[in-house]
Parts: sequence; C-alpha cells; structure tokens
Amino acid sequence: MKKLLVFLTVLATFSVSLFADENKVYRLKLASSYESTMPILGSLSDELKKLVETMSNGRLQIRVDTPTKHKAPFAIYDMVKNGQYDLGYTASYYYKGKDSTNMLFTTTPFGMTTDEQRAWWHFGGGKELSEKFYSKQNLKEFHILNSGMQMGGWFRKEINSVEDLKGLKIRIPGFGGEVMSRLGAAINTIPIGELYMSLEMGTIDAVEWVSPSFDMSLGFSKIANYYYTGWQEPASENQVVVNLDVWNKLPKDLQAILQAALAEVSSRGQDKVFYENAVIWDEMKEKYPNVQVKSFPPEVMAALKKATNEILEEEAAKNPMFKEVLESQRAFLKKARAWTMISDFAYLENTNIK
Amino acid sequence: MKKLLVFLTVLATFSVSLFADENKVYRLKLASSYESTMPILGSLSDELKKLVETMSNGRLQIRVDTPTKHKAPFAIYDMVKNGQYDLGYTASYYYKGKDSTNMLFTTTPFGMTTDEQRAWWHFGGGKELSEKFYSKQNLKEFHILNSGMQMGGWFRKEINSVEDLKGLKIRIPGFGGEVMSRLGAAINTIPIGELYMSLEMGTIDAVEWVSPSFDMSLGFSKIANYYYTGWQEPASENQVVVNLDVWNKLPKDLQAILQAALAEVSSRGQDKVFYENAVIWDEMKEKYPNVQVKSFPPEVMAALKKATNEILEEEAAKNPMFKEVLESQRAFLKKARAWTMISDFAYLENTNIK
Repeated sequence: MKKLLVFLTVLATFSVSLFADENKVYRLKLASSYESTMPILGSLSDELKKLVETMSNGRLQIRVDTPTKHKAPFAIYDMVKNGQYDLGYTASYYYKGKDSTNMLFTTTPFGMTTDEQRAWWHFGGGKELSEKFYSKQNLKEFHILNSGMQMGGWFRKEINSVEDLKGLKIRIPGFGGEVMSRLGAAINTIPIGELYMSLEMGTIDAVEWVSPSFDMSLGFSKIANYYYTGWQEPASENQVVVNLDVWNKLPKDLQAILQAALAEVSSRGQDKVFYENAVIWDEMKEKYPNVQVKSFPPEVMAALKKATNEILEEEAAKNPMFKEVLESQRAFLKKARAWTMISDFAYLENTNIK
Repeated sequence: MKKLLVFLTVLATFSVSLFADENKVYRLKLASSYESTMPILGSLSDELKKLVETMSNGRLQIRVDTPTKHKAPFAIYDMVKNGQYDLGYTASYYYKGKDSTNMLFTTTPFGMTTDEQRAWWHFGGGKELSEKFYSKQNLKEFHILNSGMQMGGWFRKEINSVEDLKGLKIRIPGFGGEVMSRLGAAINTIPIGELYMSLEMGTIDAVEWVSPSFDMSLGFSKIANYYYTGWQEPASENQVVVNLDVWNKLPKDLQAILQAALAEVSSRGQDKVFYENAVIWDEMKEKYPNVQVKSFPPEVMAALKKATNEILEEEAAKNPMFKEVLESQRAFLKKARAWTMISDFAYLENTNIK
C-alpha cells in the first residue's frame, strides 16, 4: 500500500510536471505599423497569430496591437528593442533616419526585383548581413510580405524630358522622393485624406502610391491619365522583427513554428498581392479607358538612376555598414539580373505572340 | 488516506492519458521521385522531415524512401492513393498518361510564370480545382518547389525558321516533345548517361534539360554553342501529395505544421534555385565564352504556340476536367500577364540603362 502510494505520487508529480513544462504558454505582444483595416498588409498579423496558435496547440499566443493602441506606427523597432513589445511588424525603410542601412533591407530604387532580393537574402549573404546589423539592435529580422513591384505613380501630365521633372509637384515619400528632389521636383507630403482633392485641384501634379490593388480605391484613375511604370520600389519587403532575448528564450519547436508560420503568411501574401493587382488592374483598364500606361523615356530613367547612385554613394561614404550591404547587393544583382533577363524576361518578351 | 489514494490515482491516470494523447507520435512514410543526391530537388524531402519533427517536438515523424528503395519514381500517386505510402514527393506532369489534367498542375508551354501560377493556385480558383481533381484520387495536393523558368535547351545549330525544326534530332520529354514532334522534329529519349556523348557525336542535335544550375555539371556548354531561351516549362511546380484519409486523421496542429513546413521549404527552395541559376550562369558565361543565348525567331515561336494550342484543344475535347482547369488558367493568365507586363517586365526593360 505504501509502495503504491509512493509510486502514484511520483507518477502524478512526474506527469504533471512534464505536462506543465510541455504546455508552458508563451504570450508575446506584437506591435504593428498597420491598422487591421489596411488592404492586404492589415490582415497579415492576425493570420500569423492564428497560425502559430493552431500549430503550437495554443502554446504560442500573440497579442496584436495596431497604431490605434500603441500610437507609434513608425517607432516599432524602438519598442521591440527595449522590450515594450516582443515582436514588431513594419517595414525597415521607415527607420532610414536612424540608420540608412535599414532602407536596403526593404528595397532600393533601380535595385533587385522580388526574386532577386529574396535569393540574395537567403543565399547571397543577405541573412548574415541582416544578423550582423540587427543583432546590434537586439533584433532578429524575418520577412512577412514582399509586396512586389510598385508603379511609378499617377501623373496628370506626360514626362518627356528631365526638364519636365523640374518644378513638378509630386507626392512621393522616402528615397524615391530624395531622388526626384535632386532632379528639381517639388516634393510634397500631403496626407492621404487630401491627396485626391490636391491632385484634382492641381495643388500637385502627380502622386506615387503603390500598385493597382492599393491605388484603385483612392480614385486617382479618375483624374490622372498617365500611370507610370516603376523604378523606385521594385521589391518592398515588410519585416517582422523579434526581440533577440525573447527569441533566444523560445523553445526550439516554437522558434521553428514562428519561422514556418511567417514563411506561409509571406508566401500566401505575395500571391494575394499579385492576384489583386492582376484582377484590379483588369477592372481599372475597363472602367477608366482614359488611363494610359507610360514609362519614363530613357533620358529620364538615366537621370533618375544617376541621381540614385549619387545618393547611394554619398550614404556609403558616411556609413560603413550601409556600404557593406550595398556592395553585397550590387555584386549579386549583377549576376541575378543576367539570369532574370535570359529566363523570365526573355520568355515574356519572346512568347508574347498573338 | 483512501481519499488521497483515489485522488492520486485519478490525477496520475488523467495526466498520463493527457500526456500520452498530446504526445501520440504520427509516423508517416514518404515516397520520393528523386534520389537524395539530385541537385536541389534531392534535399527537400529531408528538409521537410527535419522541419516537421522540430516543429512538432517529434510528434510528426516522416520516413523518406527514394527510388533506390521503392523502385517506382513515376508511380508515386498510385502508392499514396492505395495507402502504401502516406506522402508522395513528385511532379504531377509525370502522371499525364493517367489523366492529362495532371500536367496542368505542373506547368504548360506558353503558360503562366511562377508568380502568375502561384497566384492562380491560391486565389484564382486553382486550389478548388485541385481539390476537385485530386480528392477523387484520395489525394490532397501541396507544393514543395516551383523550379521556375526552364531554358529551351542546348543546340548545336541555330534555329532560324520552322523549316529548321524539321528532322531536328532533339531530346525533349513530355508535352514540349509532343509540340516539337508536331512541327517535324525527331524526338529522342536517350538516357541521361549517354546524352553528352550523343550530342558530341551528332546522334542528336539538341538537348532540352533544365536551367544553368542543373545543366552545368552535364557539360553541354562545352559542345553546344547555342543556349535557347524557354517556352516549354515556364513554372514547373513539384508536388507533395498526401493520402486524404491520412490527412483527415491528423490532428489540426499537425496538419498546420505540415502545411507551414511545406511553405517554408518551398519558399527557400525557390530562392535556392534562383540563386544557383544566377551564380552558375555567371560562371558558365566566363568559362564557356562560346555559349550564345538565343531565342527562337517570332515565326518559330508562333508555330510552337499554335501547335501547343492545338494539342491543348484536342485534350480539352476529350477530357472535361482538363478543359475546366485549362479554361480557368487561360482566363487568369490574360489578366495576370497584363499586370506582369506593366510591373516586372516594364521595370526590367526600362531601367536596363548603363
């Protein structure tokens, strides 16, 4: 009887403790740059949350806070670094002001396409540079959505020469804006709510936004006839950053679950963006036959590229980490683009036959 | 004392049973079409195995059998259908002979690129058609690697007209071979070990293989001067199929783990193929300056496209499921290609400035 009692006590204690350990719940807080109502981008953090909860049988729980709650959509890195949040969902180029290197992990004008950039990140040295750069900030970088090629923007007048850019009143943020500004454009930062009216009234001549799936609802297609093709954001990558201490304390299975869940959300999100761009562009063409797709002439492209390279060089001279990442990307782009041109580009060009 | 005994017994039983249930190990067997030594394709099933084991803390175990063991690289679907294996790793177009619809889930000549096809599968009706088609075979289809654009092949002579295809001795399998055959080419099925010698000796004039990362080691670049761009396999998708009964019996968390692990393997694999193609093509250009990249002239492309469409129409007339999938793909391709051309294609074309 006494032996049985001892046995049962040991068994119960052992089982309960194993069970308790196996079932320890990790509750992480995620700060997002995006409201949940935002097209495509808004839903991804909830997708991630549901997926990791299902995969971990509830052992990994994520609470998602949007800007309504944390009030700091562009200070995500700081909040995750200092431990106020465990995870952050944002895009690294918002932190260009803190360190210009951040921009290179999102996208660069005249830089890599999505396929090229992803191959660079995974196998061409990108991941190692990301670890070197972000670990100093107590962060670990993952990807959650590459939103692909952005259009060059909605223009009310044609751009036929570099001269046409001088004095052009255009809303274009970030690095693209810096480049345009160097060529004499008057960069504007009108809030989203006033963009349509400003474009209609001629307060501005052009608006750079995203791509058909994002642009359609804003109505620019009603009042601007020229939809220019892209040069400024060929492969915008959105990040999920994790506080490095939090990451290191997660059990191996939950680390693997979080990483795979991000891969699934990212892959499906990329397909979703492509799908919506295709379907909405098709609608746009039908509904707004006024819209003509244009590309800047070679002279203008060359000037934009020259200005881009000047700014990149200036930054590289000031910031060794920026220089290291830029050089790695440039070296890979050279090889990657040669392959892109004889594979997908050649196919699209040569099979385009009625 | 008696109460304590009862309490401990209940607690121990409850904990052990919960623990046992939570920790039930699912052991699945996977049959692969590929030996583990095969470049890129060969390593993916082991990556998958390791990932699901880590994520599930050992609760989901996969045993991988390659053709050395199961002896049937092109009968994977049958072995998974009949329960001999739980999972199969293969490419659906190997099963074109059983039902031509299978081909459309891998790739189609003059069809969608990888981005287009993935968007179609996830959001353009593809997944629903896959479920309709594969559930009748007691299978569930997942993706494990899209190997992207294939080159048109290694040619020892230039192709300048449709006339040049007549009597051309070319090694090209599958649908591409059928199309070439309809234009008068003499299709050859020389085994891989004899390909180099056959090309060198002039027993054949041309070899269609894959892309630089796969082609380099076979040495065709030493003996064929013309590397033609692709038309026949723009987006070859490799599948993992799961026996539907096995899938339905898996707990929800393990289903989610398997699906996310496949997304991660697939995404990283796609980046790997791109990376290797870029790096190896760069080497090839250096080492074999004899190699010239060519595209078939428009007249030849038009003839290949016409023959492709004829064969597709003939198949659609015989097979209603084939027709349904083909029509869904064609409808989406129309919209998708319009977007591809104004996004990635326009970018590649217009920013290509020194």
